[in-house]
Amino acid sequence: MTKIQPQILKGFRDFLPDQMVIRQKVIDILRGVFESYGYEPLETPALEYAETLLGKSGKEAEKLMYLFKDSGGRAVGLRYELTVSLARVMAQYSNLPLPFRRYQMQPVWRAEKPQRGRYREFWQCDVDIIGTTSPLADAEIIEIAYRSLIALGFKKFLIKINSREILFKLLEEAGILQEKQASTLIAIDKLERIGQEGVAKELVAKGLTNQTIAKIFTLINQTKPDETLKQVFRILQLNKVPSEYYQFTPTLVRGLEYYTGPIFESFVYEPKIGSLCGGGRWDKLIGKFTGKDLPATGITVGLERIVDVIKELNLWPDIKPTKTQVLVTIFSPEYLEKSIKVASLLRSRIKVNTELYPDPEAKLDKQLKYADKKGIPWVVIIGPEEVNNNSLTIKDLKNRKQESISQNKLQTYFNQLK
Amino acid sequence: MTKIQPQILKGFRDFLPDQMVIRQKVIDILRGVFESYGYEPLETPALEYAETLLGKSGKEAEKLMYLFKDSGGRAVGLRYELTVSLARVMAQYSNLPLPFRRYQMQPVWRAEKPQRGRYREFWQCDVDIIGTTSPLADAEIIEIAYRSLIALGFKKFLIKINSREILFKLLEEAGILQEKQASTLIAIDKLERIGQEGVAKELVAKGLTNQTIAKIFTLINQTKPDETLKQVFRILQLNKVPSEYYQFTPTLVRGLEYYTGPIFESFVYEPKIGSLCGGGRWDKLIGKFTGKDLPATGITVGLERIVDVIKELNLWPDIKPTKTQVLVTIFSPEYLEKSIKVASLLRSRIKVNTELYPDPEAKLDKQLKYADKKGIPWVVIIGPEEVNNNSLTIKDLKNRKQESISQNKLQTYFNQLK
Repeated sequence: MTKIQPQILKGFRDFLPDQMVIRQKVIDILRGVFESYGYEPLETPALEYAETLLGKSGKEAEKLMYLFKDSGGRAVGLRYELTVSLARVMAQYSNLPLPFRRYQMQPVWRAEKPQRGRYREFWQCDVDIIGTTSPLADAEIIEIAYRSLIALGFKKFLIKINSREILFKLLEEAGILQEKQASTLIAIDKLERIGQEGVAKELVAKGLTNQTIAKIFTLINQTKPDETLKQVFRILQLNKVPSEYYQFTPTLVRGLEYYTGPIFESFVYEPKIGSLCGGGRWDKLIGKFTGKDLPATGITVGLERIVDVIKELNLWPDIKPTKTQVLVTIFSPEYLEKSIKVASLLRSRIKVNTELYPDPEAKLDKQLKYADKKGIPWVVIIGPEEVNNNSLTIKDLKNRKQESISQNKLQTYFNQLK
Repeated sequence: MTKIQPQILKGFRDFLPDQMVIRQKVIDILRGVFESYGYEPLETPALEYAETLLGKSGKEAEKLMYLFKDSGGRAVGLRYELTVSLARVMAQYSNLPLPFRRYQMQPVWRAEKPQRGRYREFWQCDVDIIGTTSPLADAEIIEIAYRSLIALGFKKFLIKINSREILFKLLEEAGILQEKQASTLIAIDKLERIGQEGVAKELVAKGLTNQTIAKIFTLINQTKPDETLKQVFRILQLNKVPSEYYQFTPTLVRGLEYYTGPIFESFVYEPKIGSLCGGGRWDKLIGKFTGKDLPATGITVGLERIVDVIKELNLWPDIKPTKTQVLVTIFSPEYLEKSIKVASLLRSRIKVNTELYPDPEAKLDKQLKYADKKGIPWVVIIGPEEVNNNSLTIKDLKNRKQESISQNKLQTYFNQLK
């Protein structure tokens, strides 16, 4: 029989247990923060009608989508991002109570050129509030971004805040023609990275006059938060978000897609890893389905970057590569019964995750090596001596210690350690 | 502009918050049970090479798969079930410590004819142990099925246990030719449902003689657990799995695919809903990738059926349709600041999930109706009177009670309720 090659598609990943432990912890932390603000879980299908997916996206996005015909001949595609599915849901279930606060954490698929840190299957963690134009909502989203990053253990970061309305006003005042607005914004967005000279050079290339370019820089320097952003900042202050964590940044642009009001993006400086989440107000997307706009604002947290950073920089030094706390070994087949009972006791009474080595014939040494390789912190041994005096031997593999304790001291032993 | 029709593909579902609350709770319970036995999380890609997906499946399965060419021209498909991905993982990462205990909870996709309780996107929750032929492993999987169903709140169920080896021996002794073994097993599997007469009729139609059929029934009645199953039963007893929850059932067949040893399936009788999980030993599948067999046994728990049953039969009467515990209302714009502070306090100190109504202009009555519609249990009101005497009004919407308490009693109030 021909063998099947065990391989995975380029840009896709298996998450083995040591990686899953980190991913699950990140998801649990985010879920905790989101739910504490009253956001509720939503999940949508991996497959949607192609028409839905293409509804808000440009040609560039379409190229990256996994689109195909299903066996019924329908044009379908894999979820490309979460916001469009949310917009569809809001249009489809018209009696959802408003305001609707939802979070959604699911994978999306994009046929990007695989490269370091860029995957074809990756998770987005979105949090949005639908049905209100109040700056309270924008401020709450920014506050959630702040609390999420703090809860994940990031120390020094800055949430840059701007508004599409401010940007459009600036373009208008600088006299930029409609057809040059997009490319002008793209250049402005690079100001921090390539400096004023670099941006000027790009704008010249786009056909802007030196006079217009000078005007743009002057306007940027003069730009102040508008009434909406002032209210956002006031609410952040009331909610005790420390002011060193956010900043009005008139050059923040955030893509060209569907934002209509306040926009925000978090940049992490310690460690220096760039953007971890971003979002903004998107008041016009739901109207594409219903014909009637419904205001919305929200943010996407990128799970992959967070997980990569936590691993690369060892931000969580104490996280264990396994959820298993104890391995109960089997000394020899005749002691099997004893080991079964102790494992059962550890699980049901002491509430520690306990693995019983499943082969009564295996040498003790092999069982110990297995625990060590897997990173299980404690190993329990019950052999002839232990049975004689109704005790257990517990090895603490990390600290290379071992002690013999009586069975009724098990609870106390593990309580101390938990 | 043409509107996009807000619609979902047939057989696919959105999970709105009231459904997600139940799904998440089921997943959390299963995760807790699986991890308590030392099983660890694994996730694999939604897309695999078609060759991988087709590796173990028959033509029937192929028809239901979502297969297509990706933009690079590769033949790919959506995950059809989880076991084949696990087999690929075991073949691909040869230095995983053995025994390898893993659980995996992810959606799979099958283009089935949509009907009640059958979906094209549904979750499987798998738990398997790789690398041991010991009956300890089979018994552990059965024990996990038992503990999972108990933890989910099911009262009366039976895990039927049989072995492929017993079935093959029976076919041999009855003298069934190779080409009739599969259809004979399919008929035997129906014994409980259609009775001895019904099965006999089917077997006659398959061309078996009356004599052979009589022999089959005699053999079934005489069949006893083999040495392996005897050990399985002994271990279940040692682990205090009550004997009314499992039973040797020589007519259990469980499909024809890849099982090689003990097989098991749980039937829930109260409520009477049939099978909720099933599995068995599959020692030959990993060898399809590596050329060398690696023993394995495990079970699949079907999330959808469990969730459907919990909802239909109201098995969890106390579960709330929302995770939000408190809505803090805004009496009028001038009391906004006060409401922001109380919401913040509730979240950070009292640790209750708290939503702030995001529109300071909304009428109080509208805010109360919103809480009621969403099923939020408590509403906090801070108006002129409350500010004057530094108090809060808390409405308990479920019990239609309200009381005024001082701010520093908030902790006590919610501690009582939690």
